[in-house]
Amino acid sequence: MTGRAETFHASGIVTLTTDFGLRDPFVGVMKGRLVMHHPSVRIIDLTHEVLAHWPAEAGFWLSRSFRYFPTGTVHVAVVDPGVGGARDIALVEAEGHVFLAPDNGLLAPVVAAVPAHRAARVTADALSRLGLDQPSATFHGRDVFAPLAARLASGLEFPSSIAEPVDELIPGWVEEPTVTPDRISGAVVTVDHFGNLLTNVDGALLRALPQAVVRVAGHDVPLRRTYSDVRPGEYLALVNSFGVLEVARAEMSAAAGLGLDRGAPVLVLRK
Amino acid sequence: MTGRAETFHASGIVTLTTDFGLRDPFVGVMKGRLVMHHPSVRIIDLTHEVLAHWPAEAGFWLSRSFRYFPTGTVHVAVVDPGVGGARDIALVEAEGHVFLAPDNGLLAPVVAAVPAHRAARVTADALSRLGLDQPSATFHGRDVFAPLAARLASGLEFPSSIAEPVDELIPGWVEEPTVTPDRISGAVVTVDHFGNLLTNVDGALLRALPQAVVRVAGHDVPLRRTYSDVRPGEYLALVNSFGVLEVARAEMSAAAGLGLDRGAPVLVLRK
Amino acid sequence: MTGRAETFHASGIVTLTTDFGLRDPFVGVMKGRLVMHHPSVRIIDLTHEVLAHWPAEAGFWLSRSFRYFPTGTVHVAVVDPGVGGARDIALVEAEGHVFLAPDNGLLAPVVAAVPAHRAARVTADALSRLGLDQPSATFHGRDVFAPLAARLASGLEFPSSIAEPVDELIPGWVEEPTVTPDRISGAVVTVDHFGNLLTNVDGALLRALPQAVVRVAGHDVPLRRTYSDVRPGEYLALVNSFGVLEVARAEMSAAAGLGLDRGAPVLVLRK
Repeated sequence: MTGRAETFHASGIVTLTTDFGLRDPFVGVMKGRLVMHHPSVRIIDLTHEVLAHWPAEAGFWLSRSFRYFPTGTVHVAVVDPGVGGARDIALVEAEGHVFLAPDNGLLAPVVAAVPAHRAARVTADALSRLGLDQPSATFHGRDVFAPLAARLASGLEFPSSIAEPVDELIPGWVEEPTVTPDRISGAVVTVDHFGNLLTNVDGALLRALPQAVVRVAGHDVPLRRTYSDVRPGEYLALVNSFGVLEVARAEMSAAAGLGLDRGAPVLVLRK
Repeated sequence: MTGRAETFHASGIVTLTTDFGLRDPFVGVMKGRLVMHHPSVRIIDLTHEVLAHWPAEAGFWLSRSFRYFPTGTVHVAVVDPGVGGARDIALVEAEGHVFLAPDNGLLAPVVAAVPAHRAARVTADALSRLGLDQPSATFHGRDVFAPLAARLASGLEFPSSIAEPVDELIPGWVEEPTVTPDRISGAVVTVDHFGNLLTNVDGALLRALPQAVVRVAGHDVPLRRTYSDVRPGEYLALVNSFGVLEVARAEMSAAAGLGLDRGAPVLVLRK
Repeated sequence: MTGRAETFHASGIVTLTTDFGLRDPFVGVMKGRLVMHHPSVRIIDLTHEVLAHWPAEAGFWLSRSFRYFPTGTVHVAVVDPGVGGARDIALVEAEGHVFLAPDNGLLAPVVAAVPAHRAARVTADALSRLGLDQPSATFHGRDVFAPLAARLASGLEFPSSIAEPVDELIPGWVEEPTVTPDRISGAVVTVDHFGNLLTNVDGALLRALPQAVVRVAGHDVPLRRTYSDVRPGEYLALVNSFGVLEVARAEMSAAAGLGLDRGAPVLVLRK
């Protein structure tokens, strides 16, 4: 442990975000390991259906969801196209929460959302001390992340006892939006259950462009407050309940209607 | 609070029923809010895959499931085609359980199942007092229902401290069955995972017609005790484990075989 | 209770494995019953998406997952093509864990994995004493398994107080692998979320054939340590993180690529 003040006070809560799906017992055995190491841990699933092999989506949701959990929560995210190869474990502290994920760009949206974060990497010494240096080659979620998270959530370890500060983590998968006086240029980062297109454009950026139109796939879509402000079947853009710009179609799927998916560019233009 | 006797003694359990699916973190952040407001709450998912935009299914399952939970449970259901528009919140007390849902007809099956219920609406004063009157326009499950449910489940609020009795809630989406000496006329309200057609005809109604045949989509289907009473592939009707008339096909999907879905009429005829 | 030493010390944890899916509230009401009988029980879902009507998959996952849970855990599995007919309930004790399932071969992989197990059947007397002898004809998971599991998990009942030892349970659905000096002959028992083919060949068996090739569907696939040891799109076999032989395709689905599914034969041949 370093001499600096600790700001993480474990709440005993662990959230899980993975691309494992719910068909196999992968998530279940992660929970078994968590409970073995910390019998009174409270585990909350964020989602296990993020797009496989695309860490950007997991990072986006984490960055937009973590404030709905108590401070002191440990957020574990495992989406890792390169599992089995050499891979560090990133640990980020932000606003009293801790995030653990493969160091593959997944946590970039959290880092971008909280300028006052602290970025670190779990050390080889810590893994060795905790007996986690010979894990299975293919299931780090169960064999490394679950025991680490349990120890952080139980207060047996602190971020500073297992990880060393670093200047930079691996960069993210989607560039942060660019902003000029006349336009904001962002991208679709995920498509939800209802077919709404969620972008990486924070609602606060729109204050500079109160009279704006949103351009996607050649369509100009009006900015409105809520879904019921347009008729069923009409497109709209709105700042959604997670605080980001969203392109939607009232009672229908904007993704299907516009033929758009993750990565599609989105422009906000001064009218 | 009114002077009447309180009958709700919080068990600390909250059940969740939504059409949010499990792909996005919507359910996860509702749980985060619940835990923030009531750290020791126990949360049980009833289902998050009820048909979107059709509250009848959520209400049906609640009315048939709640008795398998301890009294003192708070059951939250959020299926709301009109979210974002003006919408009251219905609160029903029945047999020592509390139900919270948009006042859009969702709770009609609970009201019909428990004649001695108490129906109420959450008051604007209560929402204002609890700081819940400026929620996001689009995610009331997280921003209003979760905090309300947490306060009821923790015993910090009572039904009578947040809601006012009303004579009637918004009516349901499916009419209750009609009964004559010779026939019962009902409807399919949901199709389960196995393709069984579940109706709104309570098994108790069938006692008046012990020798009966069930007519659906022009087919006459025999009434049996259990699936194994017919051969694989044969149709049967039975009173299922939730106490309602169900049309099934042994080891196959009745919904696919008969081409039927929610809303289809079902007749029980004296033989 | 018999006079023999009890080896089961309840941890208060129950895992659930079913083919109920998550669309209907079937799993939710099982949890309601568990909590009614044991308010502080901890419930962990293993999976509810195992193949319907094929108990072999549930048994395989249980046999490979249980050691990631604390001893004293009660593992409940309900996959039962014959529900509604006469069916005993199997109870197996192994390494300090208890398993409850229909006696239909489901637990055969657990029995095979732990030679020092104890197999038993729940007695009619116990069901009668606990008021569980008149369950619904179609939902034994909720009406029999949940109350039994809750009583075992709470320590109110012991395996020996509700079940009688038997010499043999109903045999499994997939034969155990056969081993000769030159070959091991096994089968695919499940296909995971990523399209990997998981076999019933324990990795320990491969020690006798260190130079081996794996033959499936006429293809000879090399044995490697991990997915990243081959290029994307190439096939490989490996001992996976659950300790069994798996046939995979790097970053793609081996099941789709080879056109194989459960039951397919797999040979390990000396090179």
